[in-house]
Amino acid sequence: MRKKLLIVKKFGGTSLATIDKIKKAANIVKKEVSLGNKVIVIVSAIGKTTDKLQSLINKISLNNDEKEIDSILSSGEQASSGLMALALKNIKINARSFLGWQIPIFTNTSYGKAKILDINSEVLKKEIKKGITPVIAGFQGISNEFRISTIGRGGSDTTAVAIASKLSADRCDIHTDVDGVFTADPRWVKKAKKIDQLTYDEMLEMASVGAQVLEPRSVSLAKNNNVALWVKSSSKNVKGTKIHNSIKIEKRNVSGIVFSKNDSKITLLGIPDKPGVAAKIFGSLADKDINVDMIVQNISSDGKYSDLTFTISEADLFKAKKCINQIKNEIKIKNVLPDNNVAKISIVGIGMRTNAGIAEDMFKALGQKKINIDLISTSEIKISVLISRRNLKKAINILHKTYDLE
Amino acid sequence: MRKKLLIVKKFGGTSLATIDKIKKAANIVKKEVSLGNKVIVIVSAIGKTTDKLQSLINKISLNNDEKEIDSILSSGEQASSGLMALALKNIKINARSFLGWQIPIFTNTSYGKAKILDINSEVLKKEIKKGITPVIAGFQGISNEFRISTIGRGGSDTTAVAIASKLSADRCDIHTDVDGVFTADPRWVKKAKKIDQLTYDEMLEMASVGAQVLEPRSVSLAKNNNVALWVKSSSKNVKGTKIHNSIKIEKRNVSGIVFSKNDSKITLLGIPDKPGVAAKIFGSLADKDINVDMIVQNISSDGKYSDLTFTISEADLFKAKKCINQIKNEIKIKNVLPDNNVAKISIVGIGMRTNAGIAEDMFKALGQKKINIDLISTSEIKISVLISRRNLKKAINILHKTYDLE
Repeated sequence: MRKKLLIVKKFGGTSLATIDKIKKAANIVKKEVSLGNKVIVIVSAIGKTTDKLQSLINKISLNNDEKEIDSILSSGEQASSGLMALALKNIKINARSFLGWQIPIFTNTSYGKAKILDINSEVLKKEIKKGITPVIAGFQGISNEFRISTIGRGGSDTTAVAIASKLSADRCDIHTDVDGVFTADPRWVKKAKKIDQLTYDEMLEMASVGAQVLEPRSVSLAKNNNVALWVKSSSKNVKGTKIHNSIKIEKRNVSGIVFSKNDSKITLLGIPDKPGVAAKIFGSLADKDINVDMIVQNISSDGKYSDLTFTISEADLFKAKKCINQIKNEIKIKNVLPDNNVAKISIVGIGMRTNAGIAEDMFKALGQKKINIDLISTSEIKISVLISRRNLKKAINILHKTYDLE
Repeated sequence: MRKKLLIVKKFGGTSLATIDKIKKAANIVKKEVSLGNKVIVIVSAIGKTTDKLQSLINKISLNNDEKEIDSILSSGEQASSGLMALALKNIKINARSFLGWQIPIFTNTSYGKAKILDINSEVLKKEIKKGITPVIAGFQGISNEFRISTIGRGGSDTTAVAIASKLSADRCDIHTDVDGVFTADPRWVKKAKKIDQLTYDEMLEMASVGAQVLEPRSVSLAKNNNVALWVKSSSKNVKGTKIHNSIKIEKRNVSGIVFSKNDSKITLLGIPDKPGVAAKIFGSLADKDINVDMIVQNISSDGKYSDLTFTISEADLFKAKKCINQIKNEIKIKNVLPDNNVAKISIVGIGMRTNAGIAEDMFKALGQKKINIDLISTSEIKISVLISRRNLKKAINILHKTYDLE
């Protein structure tokens, strides 16, 4: 007899955007149940519900009371979990919805970006034993103040992995509107291919740069708890991408190419080369909650001045300029050059660790196409370069070809 | 020193339909707080939210799982309570939202039309003592199965009265989009006037017939617990209508005129005059959940047959016809005459109890305008007549004049 599996299946907002899509998702669940498997469903809010609620919040108040905001935003998943339970019952699957506080999923009190502390698995286990398919409202939990908390945007992925981990599920399927993780964004690279498997680390690097199929936090959590994670289509019956620990690497040096075009670059020219200057600059940016990504510093030829370039999210550019202008005179920065017209492109692959020459191939390929590299940063399994935004598509395509991804 | 009051203020969906209206409602609350009073706010879902959620539910499933439906529908008040709390904080009122399960408001397990069993007042009292204005999501509670229940459409009125009763509030203000309860619907009678005060019984009769400013259940509850109830504008600063127990009656015989034009009449001709026939007819209608309102039976001249006329909600007409047709042959009903073209008009007033001649004035006034009366039904403080729908406006206006309401 085939082993019966316990499977967690998460459906995101775009996968639940219409009544038809909700019904399609319910049928995917039914298919697993028909095979004799047990399923736990996690849902995001329907379509753009969370954005709409956030927009109402923004119009009502400048006062950020995170507790109230969490209570408001979590109502989206409350509705979708009930609707999914109804859709399942409609096709004869014995389902029932669970809200965060009903399980409960305990979090700390960092409302808006709360951390899951523990999940009580007793109620869920009992329901599953009775043959019921639980439909859990993602993104939400309850704090020890007896108030609803949310765990950050995209948090339903994290709810799914946390539930899979706590209940030792055999698999956690993240259903989305693409067929899996691709070697590059198919809208940018025609010959992009679905990747069959990735390590957690590769997925993590790709997720944090721009492959928006998975929330990076959920990948970390899956890695730490060794949850077998899949990215799958929510409409088509295709195999998806498996994310796990060990992969027979063979010759695969680069698994995929990801990019981000929401970055801005700021160059500070002629900074006195004194100790503590960089700390002052990045300290004041950090104080304003501005996240700095790539950093490069050059000393000028006479050794007295240096130039400093760094990248930040485009959304933070205005705030960052204001911040730099406030310390400009104190530090004696000669010139500030903001540049919105940049893009970051990264190649990710576990094979890089043991394989020299990969960076060289990247730089050579870009050079041959006359694409100038502004900044470079590397990790063990990732090389990122900052280039001009207008060269992005050309760059992705030449790299996709260079590393034999087609 | 003026006594500080505890006031419950309820805002319905139309009073919260836009960001501006929410802010206006918040300012009404602020005004009371500024006077040194304590306020508890009860909110319905914003605008048409509940209808929209209900429409999604209907599209997804024919399976009426009331527990899931309640969880879905209650999300509307969850969002509005948080938004109202934010709106209050934005104008420096220290507010916080409460969901039914956080208080808790305990109900039985009749999901969809649950009855409030008890309210724990401890948490609310503690918050109020700290100077916090609680904003309570109306319409919802929690059952002993640890699931969200709703208490029926328009249930926020009932939540407000139940909270006012439990916390012995000095007043319960129901804010709505009209200035109060009127002698007749101002859209139908130009000279309709706001009524300053009504008894619970009068309001109950008016509410159940057609003055849609208050949920009848909430009026009963207010009567049983002697809650001082007000119907007030949610935008204008006018006095509203007070609903309480004792009113110095003076000469006021008729307080108001209400109507309903969603009724249908069915006449059954030539029914054998045998025992048990009426029971059979109304029993089979009750089995189909069809509510019968007015009933009149006449014996034919030879005493062998009778004619039976009754009214039902227009929405039930199709169902009722089908039901009657099923028993038509068995009972030997000669003819079934459905009539959609009727309206019910009622005069309501506590003075009727002690004042003869009021019914006569009504029939005379209608007669003079050549308005035919189909059916009559009376209670201690109400007289209702069924007339042709096309005469409705004329009838309301002549009665409004007859009883000196202008």
